[in-house]
Amino acid sequence: MQQIKGGVCAAKGFTANGIHCGIRKNKTKRDLALIVSDVPAAAAAVYTSNLVKSSTILVTKKHLRNGIARAVICNSGNANTCNANGIEVAETMCDLTAKTLGIDAEDVIVCSTGVIGQPLDPAPIAAALPELAKGLGDHSDLAAEGIMTTDTAMKEIAFSFTVDGKECHIGGIAKGSGMIHPNLATMLVFITTDCAISAEMLQKALSADVCDTFNMVSVDGDTSTNDTVAVLANGQAGNTCITEEGADFDSFRQALKAVTVYLCRCIAGDGEGATKLLECVVAGAKDEKTAKTVAKSVICSSLTKAAMFGADANWGRILCAIGYSGAQVDVTKVDVAFRSAKGTIPVCKNGAGIDFSEEIAKQILLEKEIDILITLGDGDGAATAWGCDLTYEYVKINGDYRT
Amino acid sequence: MQQIKGGVCAAKGFTANGIHCGIRKNKTKRDLALIVSDVPAAAAAVYTSNLVKSSTILVTKKHLRNGIARAVICNSGNANTCNANGIEVAETMCDLTAKTLGIDAEDVIVCSTGVIGQPLDPAPIAAALPELAKGLGDHSDLAAEGIMTTDTAMKEIAFSFTVDGKECHIGGIAKGSGMIHPNLATMLVFITTDCAISAEMLQKALSADVCDTFNMVSVDGDTSTNDTVAVLANGQAGNTCITEEGADFDSFRQALKAVTVYLCRCIAGDGEGATKLLECVVAGAKDEKTAKTVAKSVICSSLTKAAMFGADANWGRILCAIGYSGAQVDVTKVDVAFRSAKGTIPVCKNGAGIDFSEEIAKQILLEKEIDILITLGDGDGAATAWGCDLTYEYVKINGDYRT
Repeated sequence: MQQIKGGVCAAKGFTANGIHCGIRKNKTKRDLALIVSDVPAAAAAVYTSNLVKSSTILVTKKHLRNGIARAVICNSGNANTCNANGIEVAETMCDLTAKTLGIDAEDVIVCSTGVIGQPLDPAPIAAALPELAKGLGDHSDLAAEGIMTTDTAMKEIAFSFTVDGKECHIGGIAKGSGMIHPNLATMLVFITTDCAISAEMLQKALSADVCDTFNMVSVDGDTSTNDTVAVLANGQAGNTCITEEGADFDSFRQALKAVTVYLCRCIAGDGEGATKLLECVVAGAKDEKTAKTVAKSVICSSLTKAAMFGADANWGRILCAIGYSGAQVDVTKVDVAFRSAKGTIPVCKNGAGIDFSEEIAKQILLEKEIDILITLGDGDGAATAWGCDLTYEYVKINGDYRT
Repeated sequence: MQQIKGGVCAAKGFTANGIHCGIRKNKTKRDLALIVSDVPAAAAAVYTSNLVKSSTILVTKKHLRNGIARAVICNSGNANTCNANGIEVAETMCDLTAKTLGIDAEDVIVCSTGVIGQPLDPAPIAAALPELAKGLGDHSDLAAEGIMTTDTAMKEIAFSFTVDGKECHIGGIAKGSGMIHPNLATMLVFITTDCAISAEMLQKALSADVCDTFNMVSVDGDTSTNDTVAVLANGQAGNTCITEEGADFDSFRQALKAVTVYLCRCIAGDGEGATKLLECVVAGAKDEKTAKTVAKSVICSSLTKAAMFGADANWGRILCAIGYSGAQVDVTKVDVAFRSAKGTIPVCKNGAGIDFSEEIAKQILLEKEIDILITLGDGDGAATAWGCDLTYEYVKINGDYRT
């Protein structure tokens, strides 16, 4: 497996584009993205667990019942959530996209991201679709920009891998930033691959993957209404179609995970207002569930996040977050260390403080990527969660998001 | 029932004091508080659910096994949590207090609040106790100051009420600010009353009360390691001792609730960095549990809190928080309105946005006390939760708390 250039167009037979159509006021911001497969693709998706769901999710779910899709249409600037006519608008987006591409509306995945509760006018989308489709090409980056809201950087990644002796490719784009919390911990992720895999096995791989990846990311503890991770597999790599578990399925899962972990780190590190990517690595738990519960609790703690923003080695807040996580943990066996490119510093042993150099700790915590290492001394369970620091900027962004 | 002046000294037979002993670096900050009953008092307490507990809680629990106490000793500046010698130090604090007052160490409640994981040296406490005890008097305010950490204002309240034809008094002090989350949603609360009530009924009243009060407050989603609410009832009002349920018990519960609700609002409104007190009132839920779950979820939402800081009527975030609360709610029946001293404005009806004046909404949300009114259209269940906005200042305070 090897990282390659690009994102959703790295796999054979996929094109993409992104433009400004007028939903966002700022004309320099792209707000409409399109991803298209040359041929019908196996498709799988996972969605937010929030009871309040974007109308786009209801329409996309219906369209994916047959496990086949050819295109993704996605706007930013408006979530199409809590709108009386939301379903109608989402269906209109699919109809318009299908007509423009000459495909079936049932084969279109529709997503929206942005402000909740403001009616979404489909007119600018209708007007822009011909230009958007005309510009389809190797433009993963433009599509990645088109789905951004308060993201500061576009997020894309791709890998090549081998299945059945054939070179396959997989790549993805994501938007994250705010309202990010398990489960799922992202807003939108689109992944494409030319690997041949059945819709059933694709869904199986994706559903298992998100448990260790997007469900382990938290920016602010708020679970979005629009979270969607969708994968399209168009089979253009020419491998024998993966229809069961085995070595080929494992190779695919490994490649998928490389994409999703990378995008998780991007989403966490580009959390609203974030200055640091936090990775919490828990080991020695009595089981994986305990490890996950602890890792998530620490990564979600506002006090821990604020301490990391201040490069303050305040490990007491980490112990505190472990203690209220709900996991059964023997706190007298807990060790904590901080790690970054500048080195590793143990700060707590057996649930109590140990002597350490505040100066060295500060140097370590001033880095942009911080690992919080926790061992529970209770077994072999391990888990990793990703998050970010809590900053003035987060408050500023969210104090006046709509205007 | 009537509000009266004072706090923990409003009830007959209670004295208090607070001084600076040297645990906190800033010499203008009191860091040691003492509350004393002239006679042995029935005592009850509830504690944090965090598995990581201050050593003081373990010692206090032991001392309260017989339901009797006479004094509360409490320091700020150091939590005495996650310290290898924590139990020993907490016991030393009780021994020193008992010796100074000429009472039994088993009758002392000990609490600490401040930084976690730094050894607490009892020497400054030992040195200051004679002066602290000498100054005992009608000084609830000094004791209230002595337990503050990042609180910006001392918190005290008292009421008079009648039981069995006798005038009784109840009053309390609290410190809150950060690391405030259900359950319990406070750091420290001390309440005194001269009402005669058995330790058993006192515990029953307190345990029931906190479910609707301190367990419904959240500042930052972090459950403290030191949370303690303790009540002392010394019987000096001369009423027939309350030993069972009935009208007298109800009168006592009502007075207790007046104290605790007031202190909840103080704690929420003085949350770290807060500029606004938020009260989330949920009605029309299918049961009380659903109402509580929804109210807590909204009050804990970082995005809602940040929107309130910005006086932004972003009701979509409230719908979002209702949706991920875990409560079973029909989102198409949800109504939301904002209320303050400037008026009430409905913003969402049946789960969708309605036309409203952004200008009027802004005027309403610029007030210091905001009510978020939610009706679920599903039954008679109701609940109230208290919280605060999320501000730059919260991040600043917690970015570098220890130094």
